[in-house]
Amino acid sequence: MAGNSFGNVFKLTTFGESHGEAIGGVIDGCPPGLEIDFKAIETEMARRKPGQSDIVTQRKEPDTVTFLSGIFEGKTTGMPIGFTIKNNNQKPKDYAHIKDVYRPSHADYTYQKKYGIRDYRGGGRSSARETACRVVAGAIAKQLLKSVKIHAYTSSVGTIYLEKPYQALDFNKIESNAVRCPDPDVAAKMIEKIKTVRKAGNTIGGTVTCVLQNVPAGLGEPVFNKLHAELGKAMLSINAVKGFEYGSGFCGAEMMGSDHNDLFATDGTTKTNLSGGIQGGISNGMDIYFRVAFKPVATIIQRQSALNTSGELVNMQGKGRHDPCVVPRAVPIVEAMAALVLADYYLLNKLY
Amino acid sequence: MAGNSFGNVFKLTTFGESHGEAIGGVIDGCPPGLEIDFKAIETEMARRKPGQSDIVTQRKEPDTVTFLSGIFEGKTTGMPIGFTIKNNNQKPKDYAHIKDVYRPSHADYTYQKKYGIRDYRGGGRSSARETACRVVAGAIAKQLLKSVKIHAYTSSVGTIYLEKPYQALDFNKIESNAVRCPDPDVAAKMIEKIKTVRKAGNTIGGTVTCVLQNVPAGLGEPVFNKLHAELGKAMLSINAVKGFEYGSGFCGAEMMGSDHNDLFATDGTTKTNLSGGIQGGISNGMDIYFRVAFKPVATIIQRQSALNTSGELVNMQGKGRHDPCVVPRAVPIVEAMAALVLADYYLLNKLY
Amino acid sequence: MAGNSFGNVFKLTTFGESHGEAIGGVIDGCPPGLEIDFKAIETEMARRKPGQSDIVTQRKEPDTVTFLSGIFEGKTTGMPIGFTIKNNNQKPKDYAHIKDVYRPSHADYTYQKKYGIRDYRGGGRSSARETACRVVAGAIAKQLLKSVKIHAYTSSVGTIYLEKPYQALDFNKIESNAVRCPDPDVAAKMIEKIKTVRKAGNTIGGTVTCVLQNVPAGLGEPVFNKLHAELGKAMLSINAVKGFEYGSGFCGAEMMGSDHNDLFATDGTTKTNLSGGIQGGISNGMDIYFRVAFKPVATIIQRQSALNTSGELVNMQGKGRHDPCVVPRAVPIVEAMAALVLADYYLLNKLY
Amino acid sequence: MAGNSFGNVFKLTTFGESHGEAIGGVIDGCPPGLEIDFKAIETEMARRKPGQSDIVTQRKEPDTVTFLSGIFEGKTTGMPIGFTIKNNNQKPKDYAHIKDVYRPSHADYTYQKKYGIRDYRGGGRSSARETACRVVAGAIAKQLLKSVKIHAYTSSVGTIYLEKPYQALDFNKIESNAVRCPDPDVAAKMIEKIKTVRKAGNTIGGTVTCVLQNVPAGLGEPVFNKLHAELGKAMLSINAVKGFEYGSGFCGAEMMGSDHNDLFATDGTTKTNLSGGIQGGISNGMDIYFRVAFKPVATIIQRQSALNTSGELVNMQGKGRHDPCVVPRAVPIVEAMAALVLADYYLLNKLY
Repeated sequence: MAGNSFGNVFKLTTFGESHGEAIGGVIDGCPPGLEIDFKAIETEMARRKPGQSDIVTQRKEPDTVTFLSGIFEGKTTGMPIGFTIKNNNQKPKDYAHIKDVYRPSHADYTYQKKYGIRDYRGGGRSSARETACRVVAGAIAKQLLKSVKIHAYTSSVGTIYLEKPYQALDFNKIESNAVRCPDPDVAAKMIEKIKTVRKAGNTIGGTVTCVLQNVPAGLGEPVFNKLHAELGKAMLSINAVKGFEYGSGFCGAEMMGSDHNDLFATDGTTKTNLSGGIQGGISNGMDIYFRVAFKPVATIIQRQSALNTSGELVNMQGKGRHDPCVVPRAVPIVEAMAALVLADYYLLNKLY
Repeated sequence: MAGNSFGNVFKLTTFGESHGEAIGGVIDGCPPGLEIDFKAIETEMARRKPGQSDIVTQRKEPDTVTFLSGIFEGKTTGMPIGFTIKNNNQKPKDYAHIKDVYRPSHADYTYQKKYGIRDYRGGGRSSARETACRVVAGAIAKQLLKSVKIHAYTSSVGTIYLEKPYQALDFNKIESNAVRCPDPDVAAKMIEKIKTVRKAGNTIGGTVTCVLQNVPAGLGEPVFNKLHAELGKAMLSINAVKGFEYGSGFCGAEMMGSDHNDLFATDGTTKTNLSGGIQGGISNGMDIYFRVAFKPVATIIQRQSALNTSGELVNMQGKGRHDPCVVPRAVPIVEAMAALVLADYYLLNKLY
Repeated sequence: MAGNSFGNVFKLTTFGESHGEAIGGVIDGCPPGLEIDFKAIETEMARRKPGQSDIVTQRKEPDTVTFLSGIFEGKTTGMPIGFTIKNNNQKPKDYAHIKDVYRPSHADYTYQKKYGIRDYRGGGRSSARETACRVVAGAIAKQLLKSVKIHAYTSSVGTIYLEKPYQALDFNKIESNAVRCPDPDVAAKMIEKIKTVRKAGNTIGGTVTCVLQNVPAGLGEPVFNKLHAELGKAMLSINAVKGFEYGSGFCGAEMMGSDHNDLFATDGTTKTNLSGGIQGGISNGMDIYFRVAFKPVATIIQRQSALNTSGELVNMQGKGRHDPCVVPRAVPIVEAMAALVLADYYLLNKLY
Repeated sequence: MAGNSFGNVFKLTTFGESHGEAIGGVIDGCPPGLEIDFKAIETEMARRKPGQSDIVTQRKEPDTVTFLSGIFEGKTTGMPIGFTIKNNNQKPKDYAHIKDVYRPSHADYTYQKKYGIRDYRGGGRSSARETACRVVAGAIAKQLLKSVKIHAYTSSVGTIYLEKPYQALDFNKIESNAVRCPDPDVAAKMIEKIKTVRKAGNTIGGTVTCVLQNVPAGLGEPVFNKLHAELGKAMLSINAVKGFEYGSGFCGAEMMGSDHNDLFATDGTTKTNLSGGIQGGISNGMDIYFRVAFKPVATIIQRQSALNTSGELVNMQGKGRHDPCVVPRAVPIVEAMAALVLADYYLLNKLY
């Protein structure tokens, strides 16, 4: 349980700090003979990348993935796929001001308490830079899951909600705006809000909704490894996530059984889908959908109190570029983690 | 990943169907020399037991735990602790009416799709009876975690919410009423509501809040096995759970960084605790708190449409005793799962 | 790594001490729909059982297996199969004489050092009684592996060796004598030897050879989980085992490449099989064969020096029935462990 | 069980093919605060390296290790340690002649059967080049295990045996000759033999003995994960290994209990040590020693028959440099794997 691996049959192990030489990972268990679409991997990486629009952090990460093994003449061989992504932004002096300071609501303090040592540069391992490796693996997992459609989108920024249910949305529009909200009107409001927040040197939270379509019935293990339990763990392992709900979610807790039960049609589908495509921990063939809550990023460009390693409160202010709202960039990460969970169960259930 | 084990160092494996001969489990990794308080285990079992009050299911489960190994002269030996709980309610004929029917929002259909066979009696393995084994293991985990205080309580039933924050509550009152809500006035309303629902043969959802106090800083692994990710998975693996949030949760997604950041006091504690006691996936020594959403139980004593194995819609009606609100009985299960997660990290971090 | 589970996809977890209430286990991951042949399980249990002939220990263990879950109407359901075997021989007073004594070459001393506590009765968890659970699971694994033939036999007792290669033997004769050696003449000498040893209150070691036939090519993972590495671990985990070799084994270490290489026939089989059916950690479709060394059992009915818990050397003498040669009873255990390893890889490789 | 990870708490995951861009690995679970001795890592790498003497393969592998993460200012941080080793010998044309040929006693055939695709260049993943990553991780594990002494040496080449027991040897002399045999006279004979074999374009097998000293009592899990079972698996996972024995080993199978039992001294040590430092799967504080059998390397520079992918037998001859005896270079690999096993148990038992 050393904590840097995810999955059982399709298994990702990652390494790397924000300002070390490189980050990278190993994908173990990818079946042989899969023709890798490198372009598709690049596309996913570009969606996660900082600097892609004016509402996300401007930090530069070219994020070129180098594959070192497991792919031969364009196809997977069944051997572990090792990859690295160089860090090009290694300026330790940028971070000298936080060397002896625990920033509020960051992982500085807990890392120090747990390990007695930390790579303070840019948050080290606790930086969201680590999620780049998840996106690489998720992009390959997506290629395994050809028939499954995975769509995530920004469903709220602060108190601006996309109220329409996913069925009323055109997923093709998700990438049409910088905030990744498929409703143009709501997207415009969200972008406006984020710009205001950014100017104030502040940050704002939001939610991502994800829909998994064409998932066959039968995925998920019925007791401890319920499909939604693994999806929940996957999402909660993403930096800044505070909550997860699927199907009717927290609203379902207000309902009565006679309203909540999903009645069958004769073909085994259900007329409603408050279950969210999962019953007893196992997919039933209906759409799976869930929602993930992201807190506002802790790094703000405002003066605030921090604790130094001598136990004194000091004023500090974040420098340089900050990420006013992590949610748009979290969209591809949510998709990647969903793909990893599904790929694992696919292989376990011999569906590939 | 066969799915019937939970934990890594303190590891529970369970088995058993609702109407088989017995359910049971194996606790592997419990440290030696722990003096077992059997009375305390019984108390936890009694809290989970059906028939304990007039607002929960009246099905009779004496739930006597027989320990078969791993305990010698009252103390754990470091060997695996095997235990069984006999099923006393094995009347297959009670379930003849569901043999060829998939009940709506149950696991009948998904089990059949996944396995091609199912023990239909009382839901078989998908029955919440399985959680009795979790409570046994959780009760032992609690005994390992002597200094930690684990308190769960019912925080909503339907739309009746306990609005007070946990800091304003007297946890000693949790067991003072049948619904396990520490505020007597709110508890009375909840009980009233459940009685109405029960009379209608209906069911209702709700939420459980859980607070973990005196957890030392340093528990949790920073990337995929963040402490809250494991807690989330643990909770989402409980039957009927639809959502999980910790700290500021979904509300945090509406906030701005300047409001959400928890500023330090000079002793390393924080003045606020929107982080919920966990930063970067690692406990920081503050209270950990989270909320779990339960949907209404699918079994209702009302006529509803179901699908039979021939692909026809048929009318069916649940028989006998039903559980109008699973939430009060879920309280000890939430605590048990929290104890299992903490015990695993405790041992991993050499805190015992 | 709590140590009481074996396997990954077809996974056995066991519990139980020699003189506790019962031993038992959980088989997690057995596919659904397998019709269980309970008679075949009994047969395997009878082969392992003490008291089956006059050359093995006369301790009585009826060894009736009670299945508690995972089997419905005679077929597996895909749910975990829980089972128990009662201990009928719980007379703690028989063991009072070893309560404060560490017997030489037993696990008494190491358990005490590791755990600070031990169930001294009959060796507790370190007793070979634990292997009964392996035989139960192995018997079910064998039923999964219908097309594979698994044959183990006694290939030496002390310095009496069965010199013929396995190809020259009639496996149908293995069960025709008490020592489980398929060559009647050698068997007679072995039995004679064991009787002499028994009369002297002594014990003797020996080897078991095991042959796996009709194993398809492709089983085994090429790096750390090579097929022979898992077989080796499985065998070395059996009580009293001191060595493992497969194919040419230690003899192969004396050879030259030009003699050792197995040349191909045109159908992909090999003309010789010094590789032992495994190349690069993966089965090649040829017979797999290996040999396992068992030391003489430590319990002898002779006066010998032991250490007591006060650090004094004391004379002690084993009482009652002892097992002069564990090898004949180890034969079914070796087969069971081989079946567990193969079943795991079968499921992993989607061969079932 | 994807097969490219080893260990549970101190966990190594490796990747890379012989002629891909690089090989590498991730060490997850290394405790924080360990000052890394990079020089010592280089020393171990040099011991494994081809071309180090005239009796091993002359293939050039500079084997420079690049650490990418997990080490900050010279110390481990508790984060995963990612590393790569570039392959400098990527000349695919060297291997064109084996593209469509399965070499005898190589993994070519089994990889093709299992995966339907293979990187044929230099054996791809099945090349012993992969063991370089084990040596890196083993070198770090050794630094964790400061008080433990780990010494392996060549104990036989073909039929030339080092007959002296390890107690009669001076481990300081292991590195004094190219064959890594601490007895100069026997070493000279071994070297002579290997030179003869090399000139004939042939290869020869041998054994490595390994001694672990100052291992505290209490390491090992008593049932499936016995210390010697894990050591055995570790050794059997090394390329070309055919057998493993510890303590009395296969000789022990010829003995009687009265001779084999290790009688205690009053301090808890034993007067003899046929147990090999492990009783009931748990270390007892005495020296642990074991022996590993290596077959002759399959690549010989002699004409021999091979199978092509069209099912025809063809004559082929290995080209270039071959490794006449893998045993001297296996010595540091055996030590590395022993260190990995011990480090895992050390951490599990909270000894670091």
